[in-house]
Amino acid sequence: MSVVKLDECREKIRKELNNVVDFWLKYSHDTVYGGFFNCIGKNGTVYDELKYVWLQGRQVWMYCRLYRTMERFHRPEILEAAKAGGTFLRKFARVSSNNGQMKCAFCLTRDGKAVKVQRTIFSECFYIMALDELSRVTGDKDTQLEAEKMMAQLIFWVQVDPTGLGRPVLPGDKLTNSMAVPMMLMCLVQQLTEGRGQEAVLKYKKLSSWCVQQILQHVQRNGTAILENVSLEGAELPGCQGRLQNPGHALEAGWFLLQYATQWGDKDLQEKAINNFVELPFQYGWDKENGGLFYFLDVDGHCPTQLEWSMKLWWPHCEALIAFLMAYSQTKRPGLLERFSQVYDYTFTHFSDAQHGEWFGYLSQDGKVVLDFKGGPYKGFFHVPRCLYMCERILDDLLNNAA
Amino acid sequence: MSVVKLDECREKIRKELNNVVDFWLKYSHDTVYGGFFNCIGKNGTVYDELKYVWLQGRQVWMYCRLYRTMERFHRPEILEAAKAGGTFLRKFARVSSNNGQMKCAFCLTRDGKAVKVQRTIFSECFYIMALDELSRVTGDKDTQLEAEKMMAQLIFWVQVDPTGLGRPVLPGDKLTNSMAVPMMLMCLVQQLTEGRGQEAVLKYKKLSSWCVQQILQHVQRNGTAILENVSLEGAELPGCQGRLQNPGHALEAGWFLLQYATQWGDKDLQEKAINNFVELPFQYGWDKENGGLFYFLDVDGHCPTQLEWSMKLWWPHCEALIAFLMAYSQTKRPGLLERFSQVYDYTFTHFSDAQHGEWFGYLSQDGKVVLDFKGGPYKGFFHVPRCLYMCERILDDLLNNAA
Repeated sequence: MSVVKLDECREKIRKELNNVVDFWLKYSHDTVYGGFFNCIGKNGTVYDELKYVWLQGRQVWMYCRLYRTMERFHRPEILEAAKAGGTFLRKFARVSSNNGQMKCAFCLTRDGKAVKVQRTIFSECFYIMALDELSRVTGDKDTQLEAEKMMAQLIFWVQVDPTGLGRPVLPGDKLTNSMAVPMMLMCLVQQLTEGRGQEAVLKYKKLSSWCVQQILQHVQRNGTAILENVSLEGAELPGCQGRLQNPGHALEAGWFLLQYATQWGDKDLQEKAINNFVELPFQYGWDKENGGLFYFLDVDGHCPTQLEWSMKLWWPHCEALIAFLMAYSQTKRPGLLERFSQVYDYTFTHFSDAQHGEWFGYLSQDGKVVLDFKGGPYKGFFHVPRCLYMCERILDDLLNNAA
Repeated sequence: MSVVKLDECREKIRKELNNVVDFWLKYSHDTVYGGFFNCIGKNGTVYDELKYVWLQGRQVWMYCRLYRTMERFHRPEILEAAKAGGTFLRKFARVSSNNGQMKCAFCLTRDGKAVKVQRTIFSECFYIMALDELSRVTGDKDTQLEAEKMMAQLIFWVQVDPTGLGRPVLPGDKLTNSMAVPMMLMCLVQQLTEGRGQEAVLKYKKLSSWCVQQILQHVQRNGTAILENVSLEGAELPGCQGRLQNPGHALEAGWFLLQYATQWGDKDLQEKAINNFVELPFQYGWDKENGGLFYFLDVDGHCPTQLEWSMKLWWPHCEALIAFLMAYSQTKRPGLLERFSQVYDYTFTHFSDAQHGEWFGYLSQDGKVVLDFKGGPYKGFFHVPRCLYMCERILDDLLNNAA
């Protein structure tokens, strides 16, 4: 890809981001009960009214981020939608738990009644992301404090005592280091500290370097594999759980690590991130026959037990685009741009829906659309716009520096 | 299919059952810790040592049933394996719950430590099936009593108070009538009463007719659809949950109802079972383009949110074979035998593995093997041998009567 082509690429990405934002502005707002519809069919039809807290939080976050940092999205309708989403979250997402600790529901009815609570930390993570970013555009101190309070709760669950999450203690169920946890915490530290000065950075410095160490523990087998779950001591676990690979997740961790390496000027970590978390998962995760990234793999070549293992999901491709473009922008190594280009071609020809807008999320191994909705329980206004937003900004930098 | 062909078909089924039994006898026995390996690759390799309680219970049940009712399986090695499985279950499956109620784990380590407990009734169901059938071959009264005790606990959860299952009470999470529950209870009543005389039948008579009513509530939209979840009052539920269809499950309910109708000489119910639970789910569940039964569908034609909705799983085809052959044997309607033949052809050409034995479980929509293991967290020694066993017996009856 030459500079001229990067320019075309930025143009395409910019237009795509506009279209995706328009899709959600048009179809997802619940003007009666507040918050957002999440289950949206290929042409914009709402096919279920349930509201998923992960996706409510992510949409608030994404709207605020776009409003705050991109001039063309600094529009009242986006701010209003984000505020309405924040109000809905603060009013309904929290549920009382047995021991008085704060917990967020996973899923709510249209009018905000809790349907399901997961015994994990992720609803809370997206609640924090949403409220912190919202507080940055509204300037509301109380919203920011609520995010900080939930963050303290989260750190307690992860580092001190997970009992409040409600999982029963079972003799065969050992605590493990699952990559999602340090990744989410790292992302939250980035969120809570960005632009907030030295004090905030210092407050979370120890936590974020702990997250880096926890993520690096997933480099296994002499640097030849990233494994999704390892023991608390960083050793390989037995069975399917221990052999599981999730290439898209490793790539996402890759660009999280690259951001951290840049912030702290850590060249060693940058190198590790590119080799182990960007190049490597692409090598084993890319389907040489059909193109696209597998969802799950087994490091020893057994068949994963997840029925969707060979499907091509939209979000690993989003993470790969960010990871390769960021790695290229930091190093200018041509091979990284070639990979970006390869993922870009697959992604835009397979996921993007020219007819009705937004992206399909779930393809078969050979690249056919298997689930044709645009929004579902795990697909909302998040991975696609975040990818387009990040790529557009990196391309802006690259092209400005080249000019 | 003519009578001659039925004879060929019985021969093929008989051989296949022998092969399938041999596969599990050869590869699944854990002679060190007892119980069975469940995760078995295409050629017999154990790829994970976790033991799933549903599958442990089902394998004990199936071994005992074959040992007890088919002369060629009345072999010491089968009895010994079943007894070892029963010992493992009684020793390790039960976990203590908060309120002192009995609960079974979902998953155990190889040496029997609980890894996971589900907040549903199904582990307990297969525990009961296993112990009751085992008590029939060993004559051990205590094993039978343990099954009866767990059955009482189960009925309490379903009909009186589900709190002991450990699900939090949430305002948006209304209790529903999910088809699996009355189906399992009906199957257990059949198990606990068969051949045990009037007293046993009377003990569970009210329960089993309640199960029938609960199952019939799933006939919706003027008899044009079987919906997997309905309200406790038998009304359609909103959203994806309410519109969900699971053709294989409806077909399984079909032959459960046919057995009940025969037992009680209920011709009306027989007719309903054939029309609504055998013919109808096949009509909407069969993939006209590629063949095979879809796993999930949405009654209004929306895309289901289950990523595996369009896959072809082995077990719905097992249930369809039993349902059509049983319906044919009761009515001799040629159309039912044609359907059986259609499912039989698809099943034997797509699922059965001539090279290594046993069946693949998970195909793509166009019929390619996507997951190539023979045993996994939800696929064990159960649906395939139960189907072959039931079909062989029905064919025996048909051919004997024809002779």
